[in-house]
Amino acid sequence: MPETVFEVDVDSSIEEQPDPIVNRWHPDVPAAASVEPGEKFRVECLDWTGNQVVNDDSANDIRDMDLAPNHHLSGPIRVEGAEPGDMLVVDILDLGPFPDNEWGFNGIFELDNGGGFLTDHFPEARKSIWDLDGVYASSRHIPDVRFAGLSHPGIVGTAPSHDLLEKWNERERALIERGPEDETAINHETHDDEPPLALPPEPEDILLGDMDDDEVEEVADEAARTIPPRENAGNCDIKNLSRGSRVYLPVFVEGANMITGDLHFSQGDGEITFCGAIEMAGWIDMQVDLVKNGMEKMGTDYALFTPGNMEPQFSEYVVFEGYSVDEEGTQHYKNANVGMRRACLDAIDYMSNFGYTREQAYQILSCAPVESRIAGIVDLPNTCVTVSVPKEVFEFDIDPDGLAEETAPTDDRGDLAKPS
Amino acid sequence: MPETVFEVDVDSSIEEQPDPIVNRWHPDVPAAASVEPGEKFRVECLDWTGNQVVNDDSANDIRDMDLAPNHHLSGPIRVEGAEPGDMLVVDILDLGPFPDNEWGFNGIFELDNGGGFLTDHFPEARKSIWDLDGVYASSRHIPDVRFAGLSHPGIVGTAPSHDLLEKWNERERALIERGPEDETAINHETHDDEPPLALPPEPEDILLGDMDDDEVEEVADEAARTIPPRENAGNCDIKNLSRGSRVYLPVFVEGANMITGDLHFSQGDGEITFCGAIEMAGWIDMQVDLVKNGMEKMGTDYALFTPGNMEPQFSEYVVFEGYSVDEEGTQHYKNANVGMRRACLDAIDYMSNFGYTREQAYQILSCAPVESRIAGIVDLPNTCVTVSVPKEVFEFDIDPDGLAEETAPTDDRGDLAKPS
Amino acid sequence: MPETVFEVDVDSSIEEQPDPIVNRWHPDVPAAASVEPGEKFRVECLDWTGNQVVNDDSANDIRDMDLAPNHHLSGPIRVEGAEPGDMLVVDILDLGPFPDNEWGFNGIFELDNGGGFLTDHFPEARKSIWDLDGVYASSRHIPDVRFAGLSHPGIVGTAPSHDLLEKWNERERALIERGPEDETAINHETHDDEPPLALPPEPEDILLGDMDDDEVEEVADEAARTIPPRENAGNCDIKNLSRGSRVYLPVFVEGANMITGDLHFSQGDGEITFCGAIEMAGWIDMQVDLVKNGMEKMGTDYALFTPGNMEPQFSEYVVFEGYSVDEEGTQHYKNANVGMRRACLDAIDYMSNFGYTREQAYQILSCAPVESRIAGIVDLPNTCVTVSVPKEVFEFDIDPDGLAEETAPTDDRGDLAKPS
Amino acid sequence: MPETVFEVDVDSSIEEQPDPIVNRWHPDVPAAASVEPGEKFRVECLDWTGNQVVNDDSANDIRDMDLAPNHHLSGPIRVEGAEPGDMLVVDILDLGPFPDNEWGFNGIFELDNGGGFLTDHFPEARKSIWDLDGVYASSRHIPDVRFAGLSHPGIVGTAPSHDLLEKWNERERALIERGPEDETAINHETHDDEPPLALPPEPEDILLGDMDDDEVEEVADEAARTIPPRENAGNCDIKNLSRGSRVYLPVFVEGANMITGDLHFSQGDGEITFCGAIEMAGWIDMQVDLVKNGMEKMGTDYALFTPGNMEPQFSEYVVFEGYSVDEEGTQHYKNANVGMRRACLDAIDYMSNFGYTREQAYQILSCAPVESRIAGIVDLPNTCVTVSVPKEVFEFDIDPDGLAEETAPTDDRGDLAKPS
Repeated sequence: MPETVFEVDVDSSIEEQPDPIVNRWHPDVPAAASVEPGEKFRVECLDWTGNQVVNDDSANDIRDMDLAPNHHLSGPIRVEGAEPGDMLVVDILDLGPFPDNEWGFNGIFELDNGGGFLTDHFPEARKSIWDLDGVYASSRHIPDVRFAGLSHPGIVGTAPSHDLLEKWNERERALIERGPEDETAINHETHDDEPPLALPPEPEDILLGDMDDDEVEEVADEAARTIPPRENAGNCDIKNLSRGSRVYLPVFVEGANMITGDLHFSQGDGEITFCGAIEMAGWIDMQVDLVKNGMEKMGTDYALFTPGNMEPQFSEYVVFEGYSVDEEGTQHYKNANVGMRRACLDAIDYMSNFGYTREQAYQILSCAPVESRIAGIVDLPNTCVTVSVPKEVFEFDIDPDGLAEETAPTDDRGDLAKPS
Repeated sequence: MPETVFEVDVDSSIEEQPDPIVNRWHPDVPAAASVEPGEKFRVECLDWTGNQVVNDDSANDIRDMDLAPNHHLSGPIRVEGAEPGDMLVVDILDLGPFPDNEWGFNGIFELDNGGGFLTDHFPEARKSIWDLDGVYASSRHIPDVRFAGLSHPGIVGTAPSHDLLEKWNERERALIERGPEDETAINHETHDDEPPLALPPEPEDILLGDMDDDEVEEVADEAARTIPPRENAGNCDIKNLSRGSRVYLPVFVEGANMITGDLHFSQGDGEITFCGAIEMAGWIDMQVDLVKNGMEKMGTDYALFTPGNMEPQFSEYVVFEGYSVDEEGTQHYKNANVGMRRACLDAIDYMSNFGYTREQAYQILSCAPVESRIAGIVDLPNTCVTVSVPKEVFEFDIDPDGLAEETAPTDDRGDLAKPS
Repeated sequence: MPETVFEVDVDSSIEEQPDPIVNRWHPDVPAAASVEPGEKFRVECLDWTGNQVVNDDSANDIRDMDLAPNHHLSGPIRVEGAEPGDMLVVDILDLGPFPDNEWGFNGIFELDNGGGFLTDHFPEARKSIWDLDGVYASSRHIPDVRFAGLSHPGIVGTAPSHDLLEKWNERERALIERGPEDETAINHETHDDEPPLALPPEPEDILLGDMDDDEVEEVADEAARTIPPRENAGNCDIKNLSRGSRVYLPVFVEGANMITGDLHFSQGDGEITFCGAIEMAGWIDMQVDLVKNGMEKMGTDYALFTPGNMEPQFSEYVVFEGYSVDEEGTQHYKNANVGMRRACLDAIDYMSNFGYTREQAYQILSCAPVESRIAGIVDLPNTCVTVSVPKEVFEFDIDPDGLAEETAPTDDRGDLAKPS
Repeated sequence: MPETVFEVDVDSSIEEQPDPIVNRWHPDVPAAASVEPGEKFRVECLDWTGNQVVNDDSANDIRDMDLAPNHHLSGPIRVEGAEPGDMLVVDILDLGPFPDNEWGFNGIFELDNGGGFLTDHFPEARKSIWDLDGVYASSRHIPDVRFAGLSHPGIVGTAPSHDLLEKWNERERALIERGPEDETAINHETHDDEPPLALPPEPEDILLGDMDDDEVEEVADEAARTIPPRENAGNCDIKNLSRGSRVYLPVFVEGANMITGDLHFSQGDGEITFCGAIEMAGWIDMQVDLVKNGMEKMGTDYALFTPGNMEPQFSEYVVFEGYSVDEEGTQHYKNANVGMRRACLDAIDYMSNFGYTREQAYQILSCAPVESRIAGIVDLPNTCVTVSVPKEVFEFDIDPDGLAEETAPTDDRGDLAKPS
């Protein structure tokens, strides 16, 4: 086991963590640890909510979640010798839950507290707890599914420069100012009077590691939220960024100041419930290296990666096809988001044939290694998006031929945890 | 070889085809052939442009393409016993080019004649010709790439009912009437004064098989264009709908009246250049069956499928990450299309490191079995889309580590065919 | 379609074939066709028995098979410029049955006429006929299995030099002379008074293409049988030598004089029934090239290959473990053949649980893409061999858990064709 | 993390282990732990040699190895309710090295102390030490290879009944008595005056857990060695019995009394160097269940398993073809062992082209996830065995085309550890 350079404690409050948690991007957050190029090291991570969710059968914790302090992340890790213009090479050697804490959760957030991709269909809080047994996940709240996890960090990124941070804030502020009119029409996801189109810097609940309180106060209005992925990679939530992947991250500040966390035991493409993977606390083993002057050598100022080859393999799928007509029948223009909505809704309908509630089906799509592809994006006005659900995820046969041959199974497969 | 129920001739004009071509969706197009459930049969297909493209080194044919008569399709095939409410089960047994015509093409369309996903970056016509050697494709216009094709029909669908057709026309007309303002901002793809947001019924160049001329005239204003995928599947352009796939299509009219065509030797997710696969004329062997009352039994009124397991396998990729900030720096709201744009542009930049022109790289993305996934769709305001390019597609090493180690290769890899 | 350089006719007798069949290896067989390096071409092939098997429901043809004239092969194909010491590079572009002849067969040979790997358990002739529908095979004689074929040529090889031929004859003659005593004990496969341990040159039924009758007579006592694989590759029966494979063959004579045939639509590792694949007549498209002085450059005088990536993919298997104790309880010393026997017999037992006769199960193992691996070869005195049967080959669930939950299914699944 | 039911200490002597090691199969060894059906638990394991190998650069430890006390195993684990005739179901949830001990080793054993599959070619002791970084292995003794491990237990088995044990001893004794004449001719692996054909019970160094000394003395002449796999599975050394596999083991004694150990981080098919995987100490998490009366229900008295789907995936291989002519030119009769020898020797020759010593190449074959298949077993007198080496295992290109294009690379790639 490589040396642990950042420790967390799942039984302590955020204030009492062994190493200081960070929940914003800012160039001036002091490094919590330092490593050399070529070095292997372990980073421990809280779950993204910072221990707000418990392993029980009530969704109250999801319903009452305080979102402002998320994500609870580990770092920054300084890489000696890294300079702006370099590419930081990060090998993801392995990751997993803590040995005495082998469980994870998925949550559907309330419509007015975070929501999710299909929040207008699923407005109420729900939760599933997942047991993590070696490489496999299963849930008492979603019986008869069991699958190997394509584990990955939801977040890995480098610190932005002051210039880059300023650019982020400007463009996101501009979006907020342009307002919601057009976009809501297209995305169907924001609904009350003042829907957030982006999350501006939020001084409340800010955590900037070991930064002095004075300095925190000074930068609290500019430190960027960690929700969106950006030039520094960050919250990409890419299910295939799993064991064995090698990520190339642009370096924007001296030392690179890498931050990671938001570990996922498994996730479907899209992470659609928002708390959308099997979320876990745990550890991640990494090795870093540098490509000096890499942004120029590789002709790029963006993140890219080569995935590992240890992904769980599936050979049989049921595939759903969505296109850019929303569920109310309105035609949109080549809108991949609407295509994704429709394919997801179709898949949820389909899984309901087998005794699952729609909420369970929504979480299966969000947790299992579901493939969501933009199949065709040029056939105006419809963009075709496919959602492929691996048949092997289920411990019974979900092939459509089974539905054809007999009356649909009426098994009761229980339900998710609800607010109590 | 199963019996051929629909024949074409790549050396004859559209008017002189052995069986009558169809290029619109309408419930009243007479069946060109009839098959029994359980029957295997072969359907021959022109390329989607109806022989407008030739195997040469000039892109004039792409530049001057008449788009109104596309797609040139085969059918309808009547399935005995099929009734509205049934599901038609179509097994795709195999497909390929004609033995004496083993080539295909990819085209970039002019900005003002069709365009493509990245048409503002690639406004001029270009063409590549591909040699189809058994399972492999290669092109004299894009050297040093060679890959096995994930061949599939771009189009397979059932005839709409009158009601459904009416619904299509209404919703697409409404989009056209709502106008382009908002959408263009988001999609960056339409640009002149009256960009088409959808393609309304087009009496010009209409082909409705054996329908009487009088009747054609009567329905020409309502028969739907074949460009967009819809409830009947149609032009889904799903690369994984390949050999061995079993498709379930809702039946809307007596006899189902299936139409197919637009065969692709290979395609990347998105089919981004618009003429976007390796397009070919050829044959497809199918077997059909019926699930009586299937729409109720399967609880669905949409198409779904189970893919075959004969896809070419790749184990190494370079993956590009896009998010919803367009290339001019404007922040969009969770827009998967913009995420796809950025990831594609990044991939094109990257391939340029290895001696390809950007036009060649654009076509590689569109022709090779590239995976484009909606990785995360809830992290407002950015949706992360990944574009995964298989390393094995190239006959040299495109791993980023190679770029790191040495100065970028400066090989000249030729160029696409241009207008002459 | 590349030019056909060797034609066959499945409806004509061997004597009346358009191009002359060859069934022995000899350096002096005249080339039937000539190709240039870089050239693509098509070779047509009879099934290995030369049309002796018919598509019916009787195994009489298998029982009464004349084995002496097998294999019926196509070639030699001369490659211009090939010289001894070169390596001939053969790309297998594609292969398949003839369009009007899309069927194949598997046979269990009589104990005293060829036999098979488990001939003491399966002494009587049996036959199954397979329908080849696009990429899929299924058989009326073995219901409820259906799988995509990993099609390949059983035989592809270069002509031996006179010296090499002499070496073959000597070593095989020496084996025959050493006699059967020890080996039968180990292999359990030979049983009557004069079991053949090897097949010496056989003047009867010899076919040497266009060679003059006089010359044929002269060499008939030295031309080598085509049953065993040797230095020139030949009858390797490697299931993974499928579409997209690139084979490197040593060149022993001027022009290389490649011969091919014995096409298999699908085969399990081991080809255990002897007529052991889904045998078919058909065509194969190839492209050849030369590595001049390749044997020295590559430091090798043996065949090697890189497989294609279009193999059917399976993700679920039931795996049987055999070791070197034969079914009568005798312990052998690290004997992989006995391990293979036991694993095959276990797999046959297992499949019998689901309503198949043992003969059907034997043929499934021989035809479906079964993986047979030498798992451990050093654990004296037992060598562990695994036989992995893909679950997806069956149209019902063969998982052991199903057997655990209920009483074994008693479905009658018919039987193979028997002698009438 | 499930509860640990069996502990080991890699820093203590065998006598001082926290739980008592077992190195023989006998029905009367007392259970070291007891679990319920459905229970998950962790078993810790020494490496198979019981700490005899150290992480250094000398092969003295391999050369001087005391083989009599091997394997050092963990158990027996009693499963409550298990009775003879049941099948024990073992889920392999995960396994790995100890966090503070992440290394493994491969050894070539001296010809007169164990030997290996190719011991006549590799008679001297050699060692490689492997660093285990997350899912990846690499070795300072074999540079430029790096691969994800297909980790598995070399040994998992149930206790034999007295009857079964008697049967084992009888048949193995009979082999020893029949003597070496025939077999050595075939296997080429035993060579001095009294080569061991099997390992009879060995009272020296016997370890039977907590059994009373008196009782140990009583059974020492009948307790079976753990080297060979047998009806109870045991030392199968199956590389694919990895994470996610479900094994079905026949139960021969009340409580089943399962034993496991000999953990492998990675292994090639055949485990050919004898100490033949990347051997490690570590932990394995399991879950057990019972199929009551399973041997009858499943119609079997042998072990079988369904593999997990988390194997590292490779899409490109170089494949070597061996047949039953040994390297001295002697023809054997359908001998798969000889075929395996030849294919391995060819692969070793081939890897030597790239700067590896033959000893390094031998260990690569034994450690990396190499596929060794019995391709054709009926083509008398030659059995074709293929050895497929994944190209992705190497950090440079080993494709044959590279050898063709240029003079062979002459890089020096160091060497294994030798005796000092």
